[in-house]
Amino acid sequence: MQFKTLEFTGDCLRLIDQTKLPRVTQYLDCSTVSDVFQAIRALVVRGAPAIGVAAAYGMVIATRKEEFSSSSELLKALEKSGEYLKSCRPTAINLAWAVERMLGVVKGNLQSPPGEIITLLETEARAIEDEDKAMCRKIGEIGETLIEDNSSILTHCNAGALATAGIGTALAVIYVAHEKGKNIRVYADETRPLWQGARLTCWELQQEGIEVTLICDNMAASLFLAGKIDAVIVGADRVTANGDVANKIGTYNVAVLAEKHGVPFYVAIPRTTIDDDLHSGDDIPIEQRDPTEVSEPGGRPIAPENIKIYSPAFDVTPNSMITAIITDEKIWKGGRWGK
Amino acid sequence: MQFKTLEFTGDCLRLIDQTKLPRVTQYLDCSTVSDVFQAIRALVVRGAPAIGVAAAYGMVIATRKEEFSSSSELLKALEKSGEYLKSCRPTAINLAWAVERMLGVVKGNLQSPPGEIITLLETEARAIEDEDKAMCRKIGEIGETLIEDNSSILTHCNAGALATAGIGTALAVIYVAHEKGKNIRVYADETRPLWQGARLTCWELQQEGIEVTLICDNMAASLFLAGKIDAVIVGADRVTANGDVANKIGTYNVAVLAEKHGVPFYVAIPRTTIDDDLHSGDDIPIEQRDPTEVSEPGGRPIAPENIKIYSPAFDVTPNSMITAIITDEKIWKGGRWGK
Repeated sequence: MQFKTLEFTGDCLRLIDQTKLPRVTQYLDCSTVSDVFQAIRALVVRGAPAIGVAAAYGMVIATRKEEFSSSSELLKALEKSGEYLKSCRPTAINLAWAVERMLGVVKGNLQSPPGEIITLLETEARAIEDEDKAMCRKIGEIGETLIEDNSSILTHCNAGALATAGIGTALAVIYVAHEKGKNIRVYADETRPLWQGARLTCWELQQEGIEVTLICDNMAASLFLAGKIDAVIVGADRVTANGDVANKIGTYNVAVLAEKHGVPFYVAIPRTTIDDDLHSGDDIPIEQRDPTEVSEPGGRPIAPENIKIYSPAFDVTPNSMITAIITDEKIWKGGRWGK
Repeated sequence: MQFKTLEFTGDCLRLIDQTKLPRVTQYLDCSTVSDVFQAIRALVVRGAPAIGVAAAYGMVIATRKEEFSSSSELLKALEKSGEYLKSCRPTAINLAWAVERMLGVVKGNLQSPPGEIITLLETEARAIEDEDKAMCRKIGEIGETLIEDNSSILTHCNAGALATAGIGTALAVIYVAHEKGKNIRVYADETRPLWQGARLTCWELQQEGIEVTLICDNMAASLFLAGKIDAVIVGADRVTANGDVANKIGTYNVAVLAEKHGVPFYVAIPRTTIDDDLHSGDDIPIEQRDPTEVSEPGGRPIAPENIKIYSPAFDVTPNSMITAIITDEKIWKGGRWGK
């Protein structure tokens, strides 16, 4: 990749500042736990996998500017840092998972001196990053087999390198297809209300030299009608046991368009995104976002005051409308996952 | 209505300034032809029927500050004013139509003195306004019969009072249903890139006390899936002889959603919007708009520089997906119009 979403230098975590993209490419160095906390909260780094990796390095950074007289003192300090990091985006499941995994290293090595545990922690954080990179690569390699040469692919939101430590999930499929010499054109939905498609997906594909065209969300339909879309690939926030997919609002709209026009609709995710405890999409509560994201885009009001606004964070696409779910393990076409 | 889109005072044309809505309600008085020209060009007044009425009054205003020694001198002056007005939005068919109709009054009365012709011109402009109001009312009365009590209706863009001299076209159906005591809730698509739904439709429905909820264009699909939309009503820019409908980009997307979820999809238009010379939607060229409307909403960049953008002004919905076309003459369900 031409850019690094995150990079650990040994002393600090260097993040590409995603709040400044796409017009300004600026890196932010986090050298304290508080820096990491602020960066995650302010969406300098976003995307579940990337947040997990950032939090793991945050736990390493927490060991840097203190002296620990015992391993139990180290554990106590890291438990405090971990609680603090977890509180910055409470619903980000990878964040809590990474913190707990790092704490597990301390708990499993309490017989060792603090210096040794700190080395193990750095190794663990690098392992989390490497696993994330490998996961992205596998999704790309597996998914790429579904993509035909000379394809135009529509994507929604950003499930790209900027959301992971590696080459992304949905966009991994595109990057690997491109690497293998396939001629790929991408249409990127702008993705209202927060424009992740316009701001992030367009930026990273442009960086990588992949042809990308920006459209408003309501323009995709006319492209489908004109036969200009050959496949859809999106990521997902959560997949239920029956294969229903919760993803950024507007994903279901794209699925309806794909179905109507006979275009394959693919979802690319790490296996860990599948929540076996939830039977179907009906079990997922739909979170409402801050209405001013709709009524005041970029801080400028576009609607009258006191207007009612409906702004769900995501929608649920039924499994029956999904051609295949691509994971880092296999391609899943219908049926109950893993059973 | 609680507001007037336009009003002729005898000396000047008073327009609600639609570029200032929805947060500022301000009226602009046009007392010269140049004022009217600037107002139409700057979209202070927009919507084909409203532009036609504004241009008719512009022709009256053209007679106000000059002395005419003969009717042929008056004709010469008005032909010049008419050419000038027509040039400000060359594709606005109602503009040219209104100008020609006003010139017809002069040409048909060249034997009369200039003062008498000027009186006839004012009468003609008022007739154009009154006909537009009557057309809106008829669309509303005819279309209202299709709307059930306790309905939630989705609309796209603004086909409302702000686009006409009367109560609108698509929104006329809603206003009349509301007048008749039906309990109507409206969902308004924001309508990217220029947000006419958020800025104008929300504003005018709120003014009239009709419950309205703003959504981003990509959120409608989840409302359909949840069974929260009972009908769709939109306007149209152009309807071809076979009943295909060209309207603001995103309309076809809504039609696909309505079809998928078994919800009726209505188009409300004046009979004059039907272009019998065009056989089908395939005959309509798709105009591309300024790409910065997509990439720099409200003047603030949301996309990287040098990104490709696809921004069609409208899309075409095939007649087979339209439940009924409501005109000021009748409800048209399928088949070739008027034949």
